[in-house]
Amino acid sequence: MYTVYGMAISGNCYKLKLALTQLDQPYRWVELDILKGATKTPEFLALNPNGQVPTIVLPDGDTLVESNAILCYLADGSPLWPSDRRTKAEVLKWMFFEQYSHEPNIATVRFWVAYAGRAQELAAEIEKRKVNGYKALKVMEETLAKRPFLAGDKYTIADIALYAYTHVAHEGGYDLSAYPAVQAWLARVAAQPGYVGMN
Amino acid sequence: MYTVYGMAISGNCYKLKLALTQLDQPYRWVELDILKGATKTPEFLALNPNGQVPTIVLPDGDTLVESNAILCYLADGSPLWPSDRRTKAEVLKWMFFEQYSHEPNIATVRFWVAYAGRAQELAAEIEKRKVNGYKALKVMEETLAKRPFLAGDKYTIADIALYAYTHVAHEGGYDLSAYPAVQAWLARVAAQPGYVGMN
Repeated sequence: MYTVYGMAISGNCYKLKLALTQLDQPYRWVELDILKGATKTPEFLALNPNGQVPTIVLPDGDTLVESNAILCYLADGSPLWPSDRRTKAEVLKWMFFEQYSHEPNIATVRFWVAYAGRAQELAAEIEKRKVNGYKALKVMEETLAKRPFLAGDKYTIADIALYAYTHVAHEGGYDLSAYPAVQAWLARVAAQPGYVGMN
Repeated sequence: MYTVYGMAISGNCYKLKLALTQLDQPYRWVELDILKGATKTPEFLALNPNGQVPTIVLPDGDTLVESNAILCYLADGSPLWPSDRRTKAEVLKWMFFEQYSHEPNIATVRFWVAYAGRAQELAAEIEKRKVNGYKALKVMEETLAKRPFLAGDKYTIADIALYAYTHVAHEGGYDLSAYPAVQAWLARVAAQPGYVGMN
């Protein structure tokens, strides 16, 4: 059985909950409160020197980190990460885009605004990040206007990775009304077999 | 043949040059000057709506973006991206770490300091990023003190992805003297068969 060290409000952690459920893999969830320093204890840093959740312990006791690398591990050999070379890379393209262009702008703003109470203190930084966050949503919109899922016709871990923070972007003050294809895709993901919500 | 749209001073673009050379794949390089807006023209945005280099055009005319996803595509089926499930995910772990924890701190600081002439204007932001950049180097140091390459005993695209900006970190003012295992690893990468330098 897998053990996930995670925090329920974290989209990066939710990615694993959704994938494990849809892959029908049993797991144990250990809730850690980032806001109370639970990821900076010596015990946790021994599991993950980068001090981040999620961290997963595999059935053989080995540890793996980085939410999107864990998604690839879990989905390897399943339809959630198609094995043909071009589609496999297309899925990864969206997952690297998520970590570089989407998460730092959309997830970070949500955290500051909705959970860390820093909206006023960081107002200027938040405005800068929202410009880049809306750019990321525009890139998604242009693709999703042309096909049902990010990597093509099929639902994959690219959709899981980007759904995680897009579907709660409004908590950070993002308005998705100008992104109808993104909104339709959010509904399409939530209608997938085995879908489970964040909380 | 592959066509790479890139900029010679960009580590993200250099990753492809190094991998294509080591994989013995012929390619054509189209140099674009980011500083002169060459990635924001309508022609280039049609190739890559996110307006970034590198962008690669595959032999069949299809386009792929995100440097690390391109590395995976190029190395798929080769020893540079081992196919066993656990090692494959370990390689990806380091590549996601590179895009989230390393590149925004080490590459961005180098660009501001050495190429954009913004060291003074952005001094406070640079100091913040260097704290996080040194944290990323510490994570690498801890692993490389225990094994010769990031994902284990073998040289992989994880090493290519992280070598690209680590070996020029000094251009942004980073001092690697407290990271001997990282320094030894840089030398080990530069000694690999088919190695080619950045410029």
